[in-house]
Amino acid sequence: MTRLGADLHYTDATELVRMLRERRVSAREVVRAHLERIGEVNPQINVVVTLDGERAMREAAAADERLAGGGEVGPLHGIPVAVKDTHDTAGMRTTYGSPVFAEYVPERDALIVERMRAAGAIVMGKTNAPEFGTGSHTYNPVFGVTRNPYDTLLSAGGSTGGGAAALAAGMHPLSDGSDMGGSLRNPASFNNVVGIRPSPGRVPQWPSFLPWEPLAVAGAMARTVSDTALLMSVIAGPDARAPMALTDPGTVFADPLDTDVRGLRVAFSADFGGALPIENAPSAAVTAAAEVFAGLGCAVEEVRLDFGSVDRVFRTLRAWQFAVAYGSLVDEFPGQVKEPLVEEIRGGRRLSGEEVGAAKTRLADVYHRFREFFDGYDLLLLPVSQVLPFDAGLEYPARVAGRPMGDYLEWMASSYWVTTTLCPAMSVPAGFTPGGLPVGVQLVARHRADVALLRYAYAFERATRYADRRPGLEIT
Amino acid sequence: MTRLGADLHYTDATELVRMLRERRVSAREVVRAHLERIGEVNPQINVVVTLDGERAMREAAAADERLAGGGEVGPLHGIPVAVKDTHDTAGMRTTYGSPVFAEYVPERDALIVERMRAAGAIVMGKTNAPEFGTGSHTYNPVFGVTRNPYDTLLSAGGSTGGGAAALAAGMHPLSDGSDMGGSLRNPASFNNVVGIRPSPGRVPQWPSFLPWEPLAVAGAMARTVSDTALLMSVIAGPDARAPMALTDPGTVFADPLDTDVRGLRVAFSADFGGALPIENAPSAAVTAAAEVFAGLGCAVEEVRLDFGSVDRVFRTLRAWQFAVAYGSLVDEFPGQVKEPLVEEIRGGRRLSGEEVGAAKTRLADVYHRFREFFDGYDLLLLPVSQVLPFDAGLEYPARVAGRPMGDYLEWMASSYWVTTTLCPAMSVPAGFTPGGLPVGVQLVARHRADVALLRYAYAFERATRYADRRPGLEIT
Repeated sequence: MTRLGADLHYTDATELVRMLRERRVSAREVVRAHLERIGEVNPQINVVVTLDGERAMREAAAADERLAGGGEVGPLHGIPVAVKDTHDTAGMRTTYGSPVFAEYVPERDALIVERMRAAGAIVMGKTNAPEFGTGSHTYNPVFGVTRNPYDTLLSAGGSTGGGAAALAAGMHPLSDGSDMGGSLRNPASFNNVVGIRPSPGRVPQWPSFLPWEPLAVAGAMARTVSDTALLMSVIAGPDARAPMALTDPGTVFADPLDTDVRGLRVAFSADFGGALPIENAPSAAVTAAAEVFAGLGCAVEEVRLDFGSVDRVFRTLRAWQFAVAYGSLVDEFPGQVKEPLVEEIRGGRRLSGEEVGAAKTRLADVYHRFREFFDGYDLLLLPVSQVLPFDAGLEYPARVAGRPMGDYLEWMASSYWVTTTLCPAMSVPAGFTPGGLPVGVQLVARHRADVALLRYAYAFERATRYADRRPGLEIT
Repeated sequence: MTRLGADLHYTDATELVRMLRERRVSAREVVRAHLERIGEVNPQINVVVTLDGERAMREAAAADERLAGGGEVGPLHGIPVAVKDTHDTAGMRTTYGSPVFAEYVPERDALIVERMRAAGAIVMGKTNAPEFGTGSHTYNPVFGVTRNPYDTLLSAGGSTGGGAAALAAGMHPLSDGSDMGGSLRNPASFNNVVGIRPSPGRVPQWPSFLPWEPLAVAGAMARTVSDTALLMSVIAGPDARAPMALTDPGTVFADPLDTDVRGLRVAFSADFGGALPIENAPSAAVTAAAEVFAGLGCAVEEVRLDFGSVDRVFRTLRAWQFAVAYGSLVDEFPGQVKEPLVEEIRGGRRLSGEEVGAAKTRLADVYHRFREFFDGYDLLLLPVSQVLPFDAGLEYPARVAGRPMGDYLEWMASSYWVTTTLCPAMSVPAGFTPGGLPVGVQLVARHRADVALLRYAYAFERATRYADRRPGLEIT
């Protein structure tokens, strides 16, 4: 059966924008194709948790009129998106995955949403996220669990799990996201898509409780590196509402990604120097990626990294930030916040100012250690996740490579250890297991070298083309 | 009596650089003139606490050779400076004003010093500062008190009190400095010189205990706005060692400062809405400055500002930062740190992580309040200091406009309240009392509008020329 949009829902944003501008397709057709796709596959994976198709079609019609009238259109003209449910959307329910906010409708867009809309994107709805974006598996008491399009029994990861699964399932071509402990990387690896955790300040964040803290950043996901760069070009760049924003304009991401990687100094570690348990597939993906870069003419070298005390640094600062952001909420709505988060907040509230300060001083030490590391290398390859997508019914994997996991954070250390370096980091598709599960590889570049990082990822993507493989979702 | 250098020691850096490049004067002559001046006036004011004239003359000779040999020379070629004693100087004693570090000789330059040297500046010695730069009156148990060149019975302010007095006394033309509570502004107002507290990240800081904290910044002082901009052009700009550094190059400060201020929206408050006690002269200086801007064609408007809870926010974060930076030092060297600082650190150590976090959230509120304020105005005029230079024998003024002061911080609220806005702020010479004491005015512009702020200050300076008046120091 031939349906309108059968070719459109897996068309990349870069190509869609071209087609739209050349009027080979209308925004209404593009939006309708994606709404239809959502209708077909969402019941199996539970990704889009709020949908306003009527509003989206109205906005699509307005976009078509603007183009027809010769008006200026933005770099995301006519591109349909569903926004991560931790990001405020004006006039559209935003729950943060929390029962406390189950009916909350913000008056204003978060800055990242404002920018996507201003660039021409059309917001169709919201994608699922864990409660307050905490934890790298997407489930919450408001909407339940989000499933992996490559195997609907398994987790889509998180916290940008909805955004990642939406890309893999062809529900939209671009996902906004955020990343403190791996939320733009782990779900990307679970869903065979590209995710970038940019340098702090690269994508300005507003509103924000603690605007000078560098651990939690906003960023982009897409099915390809080019689409990821396209979204970065829209959401990056300074804004007065974000006092730590970098001053470079977003257009630094609009230049061509083609680059000659011959001679690039590439370091890799498939196992974090033995410091973390890693399953075979994510580890093997790093070694294979190192070979790909070697084949491209890079100088590839295995390194033994020492992350030192980063685990405690990250957990201390994370618990403190959650206590500051959500402590009063837990008091006000007892029993309405998930227990692991309440436990973290409790720990955060027990911290002294000195303990927080000491963690920040140690964070600076980690920053400087990796600054010096990148004097010797341009790119570092690491596992993204320590595990493959796991049973969607679990809170978190009970064991990783045989080692029992103590809490919902421990299994994602391969992501959050990298967070503490403050370096930009990406998850890029790196292949599949024999059972058909996607595996990513983590690419890390020096602080603020976000553009270079995207170029290295682009070279890898072109050499491998793993990103082209789609999940075999049934159409219901 | 005509001495070589009689005209050189009060020559501005901008002019000295021109003369040096055109070989109308040698670096040796310039350095010698300043060393002679230091020898003549330092005994009265106790500004330069470490001096290495031989090394400076050697470096001057090398600078002359480089120029003679046709080598590249930097924007501060041949300019002699004495560095604030809280900034590390490689191979030159750096005490931080503390008995604990009375004999400390760093191996590396602080980044700001490294940049000044790389630009061609010649480090002659160090200028006095309060213990660890705390308090706005320059005295410490290592070197004693620094006196005001306009009246040697009075305070030169602080913590960049040595740097400010050195400028006023013709000991050097450019001062590096730092500012958390007013350390680049209050001493500028006490010494009839120009000081800029830039936006956070504008002048990268290294080494740094807490590199993501925005309250303590580094900046510049000089006798004129042009010289201040010259120094900013050298010390501003990104460096990987400072993770919060703005990405704009320092050269944004090298453009001409001439600007048409007609129509500029200027707000002023001579008394912080009655929230702070202010003596007559600093208050009158604001009203007079407002009239100057009105005369230049600006739209000038008196405003009633509400700083809200900033006092507590500033004190909380300051005490916390000192506890993190110096807590272990106080333990290790009991009785060797001044009591007011020990008291602050004690308070900082009692803070919970939640209290620190709440202060940071409130700091963000203040930031946003002033961000919105500057939607309506381009420039805000305020008193720099609440008092005139006071008895140098005091720890701090006991009363301000009749109100008793509870501690060594309270009298400088007019500076540190402005700190909490995170806006760039300058002290610019604004006239003299009938008794001949200088008074400054505080110019504040929107966050990151440092270049614009310098331009407004330049327009004010040209219209008034208060900066031209020198102190009547006796030559001993």
